[in-house]
Amino acid sequence: EISSERLRDRFDRFNEIGATERGGVNRPTLSDANKRARDRLVEWFQDAGLEVTVDEVGNIFGRRAGRNDDLAPVLVGSHVDSQYNGGRYDGVIGVLGGLEIVETLNDAGVETERPIEVVSWSNEEGVRFQPDMLGSGVFAGKFDPEFARSLEDKEGKRFGEELERIGYRGDAPCEPRELHSYFELHVEQGPKLADAGLSVGVVEGVYGFVWFDVTFSGSADHAGPTPMHLRHDALVATSDVVEAVRRIAGTEGDDLVGTVGSLDVSPNSINVIPETVDFTVDFRSYDDETVDRAADRVREEIEHAAAREDVEASHEVIMRIESQAFDDGCIETVAAAADDVGADYTRLVSGAGHDASYLNGFCPTAMVFVPSVGGVSHTEDEYTEWTDVVTGTEVLHRAVLEKANE
Amino acid sequence: EISSERLRDRFDRFNEIGATERGGVNRPTLSDANKRARDRLVEWFQDAGLEVTVDEVGNIFGRRAGRNDDLAPVLVGSHVDSQYNGGRYDGVIGVLGGLEIVETLNDAGVETERPIEVVSWSNEEGVRFQPDMLGSGVFAGKFDPEFARSLEDKEGKRFGEELERIGYRGDAPCEPRELHSYFELHVEQGPKLADAGLSVGVVEGVYGFVWFDVTFSGSADHAGPTPMHLRHDALVATSDVVEAVRRIAGTEGDDLVGTVGSLDVSPNSINVIPETVDFTVDFRSYDDETVDRAADRVREEIEHAAAREDVEASHEVIMRIESQAFDDGCIETVAAAADDVGADYTRLVSGAGHDASYLNGFCPTAMVFVPSVGGVSHTEDEYTEWTDVVTGTEVLHRAVLEKANE
Ligand SMILES: NC(=O)NCCC(=O)O
Ligand SMILES: NC(=O)NCCC(=O)O
Repeated sequence: EISSERLRDRFDRFNEIGATERGGVNRPTLSDANKRARDRLVEWFQDAGLEVTVDEVGNIFGRRAGRNDDLAPVLVGSHVDSQYNGGRYDGVIGVLGGLEIVETLNDAGVETERPIEVVSWSNEEGVRFQPDMLGSGVFAGKFDPEFARSLEDKEGKRFGEELERIGYRGDAPCEPRELHSYFELHVEQGPKLADAGLSVGVVEGVYGFVWFDVTFSGSADHAGPTPMHLRHDALVATSDVVEAVRRIAGTEGDDLVGTVGSLDVSPNSINVIPETVDFTVDFRSYDDETVDRAADRVREEIEHAAAREDVEASHEVIMRIESQAFDDGCIETVAAAADDVGADYTRLVSGAGHDASYLNGFCPTAMVFVPSVGGVSHTEDEYTEWTDVVTGTEVLHRAVLEKANE
Repeated sequence: EISSERLRDRFDRFNEIGATERGGVNRPTLSDANKRARDRLVEWFQDAGLEVTVDEVGNIFGRRAGRNDDLAPVLVGSHVDSQYNGGRYDGVIGVLGGLEIVETLNDAGVETERPIEVVSWSNEEGVRFQPDMLGSGVFAGKFDPEFARSLEDKEGKRFGEELERIGYRGDAPCEPRELHSYFELHVEQGPKLADAGLSVGVVEGVYGFVWFDVTFSGSADHAGPTPMHLRHDALVATSDVVEAVRRIAGTEGDDLVGTVGSLDVSPNSINVIPETVDFTVDFRSYDDETVDRAADRVREEIEHAAAREDVEASHEVIMRIESQAFDDGCIETVAAAADDVGADYTRLVSGAGHDASYLNGFCPTAMVFVPSVGGVSHTEDEYTEWTDVVTGTEVLHRAVLEKANE
């Protein structure tokens, strides 16, 4: 059994890095705090006897040899980048959980048939650099390493340069290689487990989603002497789309969600009519046709809003990931592990994207969820009962051990 | 007659300071560029033999003695702070126009009965520190100097500290003192003169206006797994209000305009439901009851939007200035000067606020407008034909000369 105390101690020490006043963490991808988090992880991986490899997009792997070290490894992990002022559990428990499994096996002197690797993926959150799940996407062959390195944040800083700045451009190529299976422990980030009072979720799949970047360009002018009929107000057009996203999410499919999360106005001055607005749209559903219909509808709404306000519109899909159904074998392994541990669990699908989405299809994959109290995540208020973290990690432990001896 | 060449030369050299690539200027209040603009102005005032005084909120006065120096002076001027990436004419022509009058009188060896003072008011634009027209407002006794010094910009920097930083906290008290009259030359910033093909506007008054600061506070949460019915999205509530402002401006009064110019989302992340949005509302009309009705209606809309989305709302009026009718005598002096010059002119009211709004009521006041091509201002595209600037300055010259000998 894993050690609750050791895991807790690591969890607390890890989350001192980039800790915020309101109890969260601020470690966005390739920030200084993200570097310190990576440094600590590498140190702990090495202390646990793992052989550490950093690849060219900054994914960190720690390898524990198998009895038959030529066999394809079981990979387990998640991410340690955070949202801006995000939560302490998101990603972290999946990586520290993987490390805890290794320590548990080490302490018990257990050898596994196959090697086990623990991974921390680069830029899962996608808040500073889009698309998200970037490191796992490159690993799975969905994106080119050069594409990843060329991405720019809002300030025009490149992923590649920032990666070098913090010293995590590794030598290893980031490319598909044979894996036996992939497991990821994560907080649910939604209300299902918490509402049902359960400790564990056996994750059967992940919603598909689409991300848009949209820009409206109108005319800046003085808010006083410019009559209403002469205006080309980029923010009025944007507000039409924000309301359309809400309307579309309420009328397409059963599970469709739609969000405008990021919005920047220029010149952003109290007495100037907004000239340009850049904003994002996010739609998700477990049904890919629903996602595509929502995308079509919002494209129309963007054109309508632009026509009504007589502004220019440009929009681009910056991310489209299909909905994923995980591997039946891995799902059953997780369910059996949950039964074995005696956990109260249910099967569910994830509305949040995960690195597991890219690993799936590339190798047999499944996930373990633990509850998010109040369904809340991507905020400092994110919280999971520690007993649930321990239960989830134990389920992960048994699932990985099972597969590593297959 | 004033010198078109000298004025043009000054205008061009002045606008090298803080020049932007797209042909505008970026000299927001108390910025480094604003300091350099002030330095140049003080130097030119001194070269023209003016006695320079800087007061405690950074208003700069240059005094030309009168034959009877105990008489109340005629004041003429405007402002040299700009919008973020604003235009080159806005404010500048009123201050350099005042200086040009002094040089013209100097060259001709003309003495006036009364002293003439040229003024450059602090923080007219109000984009970095609200309220706007701050220096003239303190001078007119509408605000306390301590209130002005305590104002904070979005980064939390205080007006008083920034004023000291750039070296423009003067020794002179900023308080009402006897003035004979006040004249201000400015670009119209609206389409009336340009549409009518006229060179000059005799300004009879200024719209009243109200400014609101509004904050919606909802809950940050993950854009994927959070069902629509559990959301408290501050941006959805804000979009309702942006549309309401547009609707109210279309249905109250004839001349009412309404704008949401500034809007900041937090955490502003593509996959996070917006937790808080801070934004502004600006309503203006020449009829104060219309402004008040619009203010009441938007307060209701804010409450409704907050209730619909179940977010917290707070709102505050940060500025309310009544509509101003200028002094009949000063208006007729300007009209007579325009006749005298042979300018094509009309009488009109201003939709933009001006320092003249605060001077009015305190001393007899009027303004001279020159056209804004396309009605455009508060942007780098702002433009006025040079012949119109010259004609307007000549009208200002004759009006000031008339009053300075009264
Ligand atoms: N799990 C998680 O928060 N992933 C970030 C990518 C997304 O789902 O928006
Ligand atoms: N004239 C001018 O642009 N003043 C700024 C204050 C305002 O009217 O918003």
